[in-house]
Amino acid sequence: MRFRLLRPRELAQGLRELARRRPDDAEDYLEDHGEEWEALAGQLPHDAADILEAIDEEAAAELIADLGSEDAADVLDEMRPAAAAEVLTELDPTEAARLLAAMEPDQAADVLGELDDDARPQITEALGADSEAIRLASYPDDSAGGLMTTDVATLPVGITSGEAIERLRQLHDSLGSNLRYVYIVGNDQRLAGVLSFRELVFARPGTGVDEVMVHAPVQVKADTDREVVSELIQRYHLIALPVVDDNGRLLGMVKVSEALEALQEEATEDIAVMMGAGAEETVYTPVGVSVRRRLPWITLNLVMGLSLAVFLRSFEGTIEANATLAAMMPMVALLGGNSGAQSLAVVIRALAVGDIPAQRAPRVISREAQVGVVNGLAIAGLAGLLGAVVAGDGAVGVVIAVAVFVNMAIAVVAGAGVPLILKALGQDPALASNIFLTLVTDLVGFGGFLLTASLVL
Amino acid sequence: MRFRLLRPRELAQGLRELARRRPDDAEDYLEDHGEEWEALAGQLPHDAADILEAIDEEAAAELIADLGSEDAADVLDEMRPAAAAEVLTELDPTEAARLLAAMEPDQAADVLGELDDDARPQITEALGADSEAIRLASYPDDSAGGLMTTDVATLPVGITSGEAIERLRQLHDSLGSNLRYVYIVGNDQRLAGVLSFRELVFARPGTGVDEVMVHAPVQVKADTDREVVSELIQRYHLIALPVVDDNGRLLGMVKVSEALEALQEEATEDIAVMMGAGAEETVYTPVGVSVRRRLPWITLNLVMGLSLAVFLRSFEGTIEANATLAAMMPMVALLGGNSGAQSLAVVIRALAVGDIPAQRAPRVISREAQVGVVNGLAIAGLAGLLGAVVAGDGAVGVVIAVAVFVNMAIAVVAGAGVPLILKALGQDPALASNIFLTLVTDLVGFGGFLLTASLVL
Repeated sequence: MRFRLLRPRELAQGLRELARRRPDDAEDYLEDHGEEWEALAGQLPHDAADILEAIDEEAAAELIADLGSEDAADVLDEMRPAAAAEVLTELDPTEAARLLAAMEPDQAADVLGELDDDARPQITEALGADSEAIRLASYPDDSAGGLMTTDVATLPVGITSGEAIERLRQLHDSLGSNLRYVYIVGNDQRLAGVLSFRELVFARPGTGVDEVMVHAPVQVKADTDREVVSELIQRYHLIALPVVDDNGRLLGMVKVSEALEALQEEATEDIAVMMGAGAEETVYTPVGVSVRRRLPWITLNLVMGLSLAVFLRSFEGTIEANATLAAMMPMVALLGGNSGAQSLAVVIRALAVGDIPAQRAPRVISREAQVGVVNGLAIAGLAGLLGAVVAGDGAVGVVIAVAVFVNMAIAVVAGAGVPLILKALGQDPALASNIFLTLVTDLVGFGGFLLTASLVL
Repeated sequence: MRFRLLRPRELAQGLRELARRRPDDAEDYLEDHGEEWEALAGQLPHDAADILEAIDEEAAAELIADLGSEDAADVLDEMRPAAAAEVLTELDPTEAARLLAAMEPDQAADVLGELDDDARPQITEALGADSEAIRLASYPDDSAGGLMTTDVATLPVGITSGEAIERLRQLHDSLGSNLRYVYIVGNDQRLAGVLSFRELVFARPGTGVDEVMVHAPVQVKADTDREVVSELIQRYHLIALPVVDDNGRLLGMVKVSEALEALQEEATEDIAVMMGAGAEETVYTPVGVSVRRRLPWITLNLVMGLSLAVFLRSFEGTIEANATLAAMMPMVALLGGNSGAQSLAVVIRALAVGDIPAQRAPRVISREAQVGVVNGLAIAGLAGLLGAVVAGDGAVGVVIAVAVFVNMAIAVVAGAGVPLILKALGQDPALASNIFLTLVTDLVGFGGFLLTASLVL
């Protein structure tokens, strides 16, 4: 392997690919080429982080230990908190604490939250009681407090633009990329305004910052939900959102990059919620926690399934008289379940991106109903025809066609309706919606089928 | 209603709420309070856009017509393209074209793409052939070209920081918020570097911009997928990403706010794709398009369902002999389907946020299997007990318990396995995954149940 002649960004890309495909080879290469690893970590910490996430945590810990504290902290800042926690667990607790203290306080707090119960006490003890990260870790993950960093550039009200530039120059090295945003504070750290570097460029040195700053900027409390935070950043095209306490004192800021991650988590949450898995569940969640989160919904399912069974028993005669028909039932339910799921998905997605104002709900349901009727007619015709051939009985075909059409038409309306109803009830529109939907489609699929059969045959 | 004493942001919030709940009242209020509407639109275009989206499109068009072109364009810039297109359709084509020309070219291009076939020809004709928006509309929506704006501040290589500041001052009014990002270009508009206002603040006026700019910045081609664009913006914490042609000439830039929207769409796409609805389908998609997108998957479903029916017919004897058992079958399939869907959701979500490096896949499946075994044992026990009571037959309880356990255990492994297999095959991991999953759970649910029954009873 010859990466030497490549530029850093290409080297990083090559190594990222290698780490993904053959993690062991990437480990060996990096251990043999310490200089390249140090250069990579120093210049492209995010790429270095990707590589560490792909390889074994022990090897990753060794590579982190090879770096200076600052570079190591920069790389850990760019890793997923759960992955960074695994790496830090491999290190000596004092060393881990030293790196955590050098990291961005917001990321350090997230990593602390991901440490397992064995490693956490030692590391938090080594961090010390006045650690910024420990304080930040006390805010819920899904709040502005949980997203914010406290590394913020502040300047006092009343100074001139020229003075501001002088003071910012001094902050340049310590704040790094956090120096994109400058907050102007009054007495007692009360937030007075936001100063952009653009306005500073255009201001004459003697102009007061009060004249060029944005007064009373958009701001949130520490307990504001992260969904609101992302929405405000998106709505007002902000690159950072200040977080204040009840008295309007500046606590920190949420950067747009954090909002991007929060938004991605929020948006993908629906997938889990609609299936009745926990919103916070990831592939790193301990088995016991997953079991507790999922079991209630599966138990509800069992109750629904049993009720369905009791209901279907009333058709025992029909089933016994025509076992071929019974063999066809699952198909009818399957078609309804999956058609309804398509509507459900489209509507949940639209609700997630705010695409359905209240007055539009009837139009959404009517659109889905139209799709259901057209698809229902096409599939019902085909299913009836094929069913008649398989069963060798035209009447069975009629029963199948009617049942498939009714179930598909009801399923799409239910698929669109369930999330809209949940929302109207003040619930998460995705909440176990697929579980509710499958109950409807099974009920109509099996029950409707048997009812049609007992009438027609 | 008394909004007069409120500050603009509170007025905006009050009106947004009103428009959401009682759109007609909001329309009346705004028509009667033209001054407030104009002030709101001028100062908080995004809030004004939210209000227009919530009310009737005819009323929205009237309110837009009441504004000056620039304010109207700012408000339209903040609306969802589909909603803005509905409003523009209500206006005279010449007027609509004038507003489109005043809008940000990237948003105008998106709106053009959403116009219906009746309105589009007249409006594009009125826009004229050399329209920036028409050119941009030719890029696919999911590419860097489709996301970028061409309103970019550029400065030539070789000038000093002092000269740069002078020139930027002249661009200040015309570029608005797009002036956060300054690109330095060489001969023939070739991208040479990126200049941040922060560095400009700190540079001495005589310093060449070449010394303070970032050289060879991260950049993409116009046909780069939007997923890659979002990933780069996220990876390198950018607030804009330059887009270049094959010769490295600057074409435009994608702002982080656009990336936020793209990310949200990408992330929610999975919900639709896993259910077999189209990734581009929204609640605004014409019925015919939705039908065409969904029908192939439902047809596949029909084929699966029929095969299942043929398979189940081989158990006709068992069904006829014990119709109570047949009434219990759907419950077993339902429990498997929903348990599997929980695993599916967790894994698809993890893949969407890049949480599963290749070497972790076996651990993910094993974790799901453990959850499935624990939940399966609990639910199988309960289902068996209740089933025995309902059927008044202990052997039926045993059959139910065995079938539920087997189906739930297989379902969670299939739920985790389907997206991982799709990914390994180079497909979208979400692709109709729920449809494949329900086939497995129905097959095991019904088939396994009948097999167990024919063995036990």
